[in-house]
Amino acid sequence: MRRLFEDELNDLHVRFSEMGMMVNEAIYKSVSAFVNHDKALAREVIADDQHINKREVDLEKRSFEMIALQQPVTTDLRMIVTVMKASSDLERMGDHAVSIAKSTIRVKGETRVPEIEAEIAQMAHAVKEMVSEVLDAYVKEDSVRARQIATEDHGINDFSKRIYEECIERMREDSETIVGAMDYMLVSSYLERIGDYVTNICEWILYLRTGKLLELNSNASEDGF
Amino acid sequence: MRRLFEDELNDLHVRFSEMGMMVNEAIYKSVSAFVNHDKALAREVIADDQHINKREVDLEKRSFEMIALQQPVTTDLRMIVTVMKASSDLERMGDHAVSIAKSTIRVKGETRVPEIEAEIAQMAHAVKEMVSEVLDAYVKEDSVRARQIATEDHGINDFSKRIYEECIERMREDSETIVGAMDYMLVSSYLERIGDYVTNICEWILYLRTGKLLELNSNASEDGF
Repeated sequence: MRRLFEDELNDLHVRFSEMGMMVNEAIYKSVSAFVNHDKALAREVIADDQHINKREVDLEKRSFEMIALQQPVTTDLRMIVTVMKASSDLERMGDHAVSIAKSTIRVKGETRVPEIEAEIAQMAHAVKEMVSEVLDAYVKEDSVRARQIATEDHGINDFSKRIYEECIERMREDSETIVGAMDYMLVSSYLERIGDYVTNICEWILYLRTGKLLELNSNASEDGF
Repeated sequence: MRRLFEDELNDLHVRFSEMGMMVNEAIYKSVSAFVNHDKALAREVIADDQHINKREVDLEKRSFEMIALQQPVTTDLRMIVTVMKASSDLERMGDHAVSIAKSTIRVKGETRVPEIEAEIAQMAHAVKEMVSEVLDAYVKEDSVRARQIATEDHGINDFSKRIYEECIERMREDSETIVGAMDYMLVSSYLERIGDYVTNICEWILYLRTGKLLELNSNASEDGF
């Protein structure tokens, strides 16, 4: 019984990590598509999102059955609950990749601003790194690393503020950039939100280790978005 | 034992509903603050968000303990899992109310567009109605109503598209409106996201009734945000 349970728990973790990699790929592809104006790739991200959603449903189902049939307690139960909760965070990160892909399709030959696109590419790179790191920290249950990763979210928010300022400036200078800059602003807000979900997963890693639910980055300040 | 469990389950539902009402109030206040340029009210929304976050942690803890100590199965377990998952949706709706409040504080004497503000107020009213309805449907476990509420999300997305078009038009006509219109666009995207979370809760209501996880509104189309 215990052997079976451990196999199932291991399988649950593998499937969760796979979901994380699917999401990371979606983010990477959506931003590549946006920066390279690649609509075919953007369509691929939108079509592939169903696999991410299906995986979430699969993880839900498995978690529920494991709880119902094996009635785990303490650490084992905590691991399953964490997969249940953190898989929602991953699923929403995937939704934001879809939103970035939709932006790519919406932008049609509008005047673009290469400097802002370069900044978005950098921001996306930083977000992708955070996602890779948090998946790694999750597998290793590394709570020290989780705390560090959460602090990196401040850098993401700084990108977002900078892009906001630059968009405003460019739109004021040249009204031809308005449609494109609106999309820059939206894409940067999606990336920022993905960073917030990474912070949530960091909180789940701490929970896994300590059983305590802590808020790592409060949004109680009046700054930011 | 059974009696105690039912009391606890009932208590869990009451606390979840209360959390829903706190979130609904936050959305209402944040939009009132935005539309009436009321920074004091916006600050209240930001400060009060900690109560929503604490309530989510409290619901997590109670749910976990109920599962660990009482080892519920089938319908009982499903109810607890639903509270665990749907409370994250409520918490994020609260975060979006905070984002709207931050927009209110950010906008400083910028040129505003009353027509778009009126449209945002209408959109917010529609979203608030959806939130009230979904909380009611949740308490009554009304899956027919849950399906109807989810279809209302299309109307929210229509608001969002209209506001986007209007913002672009106004910014092109008058560059003085650019900063304000960027915030209109962001606020409308937060409201749209709140509508998406309402749809998630609708899915949880169906799950409560059927044990099946269904996606009510797919984001597989290339339109929208």
